[in-house]
Amino acid sequence: MLGDFAEVIMWKNDLEFISVVLFRKMDSKDKRNASCGSSAIVHNPHLDALKDDILYHFSLGTGTHDLRAIFGDVKFVCVGGSPWRMKSFIEYIAAELGMEDPKSEYPNICAGTDRYAMYKVGPVLSVSHGMGIPSIAIMLHELIKLLYHANCTDVTVIRIGTSGGIELEPGTVVVTKQSVDATFQPKFEQVILGKTVVRSTDLDQSLAEELLQCSKELNQFQTVVGNTMCTLDFYEGQARLDGAFCSYTEKDKQDYLRKASEAGVCNIEMESSVFAAMCKLSGLRAAVVCVTLLDRLKGDQLSSCHEVLQNYQQRPQILVGYYIKRQLKTKAGVSQV
Amino acid sequence: MLGDFAEVIMWKNDLEFISVVLFRKMDSKDKRNASCGSSAIVHNPHLDALKDDILYHFSLGTGTHDLRAIFGDVKFVCVGGSPWRMKSFIEYIAAELGMEDPKSEYPNICAGTDRYAMYKVGPVLSVSHGMGIPSIAIMLHELIKLLYHANCTDVTVIRIGTSGGIELEPGTVVVTKQSVDATFQPKFEQVILGKTVVRSTDLDQSLAEELLQCSKELNQFQTVVGNTMCTLDFYEGQARLDGAFCSYTEKDKQDYLRKASEAGVCNIEMESSVFAAMCKLSGLRAAVVCVTLLDRLKGDQLSSCHEVLQNYQQRPQILVGYYIKRQLKTKAGVSQV
Repeated sequence: MLGDFAEVIMWKNDLEFISVVLFRKMDSKDKRNASCGSSAIVHNPHLDALKDDILYHFSLGTGTHDLRAIFGDVKFVCVGGSPWRMKSFIEYIAAELGMEDPKSEYPNICAGTDRYAMYKVGPVLSVSHGMGIPSIAIMLHELIKLLYHANCTDVTVIRIGTSGGIELEPGTVVVTKQSVDATFQPKFEQVILGKTVVRSTDLDQSLAEELLQCSKELNQFQTVVGNTMCTLDFYEGQARLDGAFCSYTEKDKQDYLRKASEAGVCNIEMESSVFAAMCKLSGLRAAVVCVTLLDRLKGDQLSSCHEVLQNYQQRPQILVGYYIKRQLKTKAGVSQV
Repeated sequence: MLGDFAEVIMWKNDLEFISVVLFRKMDSKDKRNASCGSSAIVHNPHLDALKDDILYHFSLGTGTHDLRAIFGDVKFVCVGGSPWRMKSFIEYIAAELGMEDPKSEYPNICAGTDRYAMYKVGPVLSVSHGMGIPSIAIMLHELIKLLYHANCTDVTVIRIGTSGGIELEPGTVVVTKQSVDATFQPKFEQVILGKTVVRSTDLDQSLAEELLQCSKELNQFQTVVGNTMCTLDFYEGQARLDGAFCSYTEKDKQDYLRKASEAGVCNIEMESSVFAAMCKLSGLRAAVVCVTLLDRLKGDQLSSCHEVLQNYQQRPQILVGYYIKRQLKTKAGVSQV
């Protein structure tokens, strides 16, 4: 193991939890950043030895793109599963910030690949991440390196997504307090060289509170702060009865979801744990804002009509758009003073 | 647990593995199918209680689409991560089978969603699955249900993908013998109601041999049969040195990859284990055919030029296209006799 990046895992006892502590020596770049805002931190001494760094799944690279010129002003990164939704978000935020392109053209910065889509308006970057932990993890590795190469500072990253709710009215927005696994533990297991390393899934609590406050000011839909269960599977992994395979009963399902609810789980999705873990390791302020499309205690299939589901999916965008606008106003006010 | 679908897990000892046995009573539908070819089997007694089955991530459903009319003749399903590649495959196979659309129009059957793309020409279906186990698992649940609802019989499913190779010349095609995890064990762990169920990742060995034979006949590129390691992560999970985080040395990486090689691993990708497990559970004949884009012992970044990578990516398509053409010819021959 290399000296300047160590994950120290502490076990409470043989079965129980675990905490991850990160030590790292500050290098000259960190010291420079410390004086002018906190930057996205990569923990990889090998990167400096690379002549060029190819961000393969973005179809971008340090040898082919001036990342600092393109991305240096980014302050907010919003990520979500669907490329269409992330395009719609950039159009929405452009209008909100009064930065619309008169021709309504928002080119896909990752047009050279079909793995992810990326759009930018002013200080806001919007990136799709596909479905599931592995898919968002690839994107986040390359996003963190992009922010690092671009020397971005004070970046906030927010996942805007969809989820299944538990005991919540469909359409309720959940801001994640803690991301928990399928056994309701707040941890993410990363396999490295065949061994499992446990990482914390803590998110920024003050950011969650600010988002809740924004929702109160907006007063357009119900928002709660609660735990989010992150699973590796949509069907059996979330106790659905409508997959190709199902070996349990309706009662087994109800029992499991009620136990989740007792553990503080408000909603279920498939990316928050690795998102929280990687943002924390990188020193990025992060939040997860997901709308619930249905109450899983009452069903499994997304049978609401297209318009209703579309309306629900816009809610995290509206909330995060409001937050970004308010932050930029506050900053502009501070600058003027 | 329900009586007609049981996974029986047998442990060799406390640490070691495991075998999964599947019991299921035949119902009337199975008996009907048994007399006229084997169909995709769902193991879910709840499905029959659904009024409509919505295949949400395909934007298809039994209430909105005549699945039997659209898909009833499907005999080969090819799946791959990239939607662009799966469109290019359908164009390629259409030409190979002499079934080109004169206007070269191959509509995306899943045009109502951006989660997956799906194309069809005659008996061949081409479906994208995104990156990683969760993403392909969602697709496979809905694909297996689609084949079931459409009453398809004798279906072969082949994943055509890209991978990192170990000690192989880049461009070599690997037909997977066994899919193994990051500890080189041939198993897939499925979490159900918070508990881990271990599933077998056996693939059809005769199909693998037939594909190898096809490659010999084609004589265009090197093809080997070997084990494929399936990981949950592209960077730390595959011992890459170029992610946002890296806590190990070049020597640690080399040691890990050499151990993988000693365990028979020829290549590394991110979907084969759940693909093998789910196809086996459904009684679908399945194979994984991936080209290696680089030798991981020599590097991590995909730095070959676009044209070279494009050429490599076509190789699984060419091999599987040849196999399908040969199968259809053989069947036509048998029918004429």
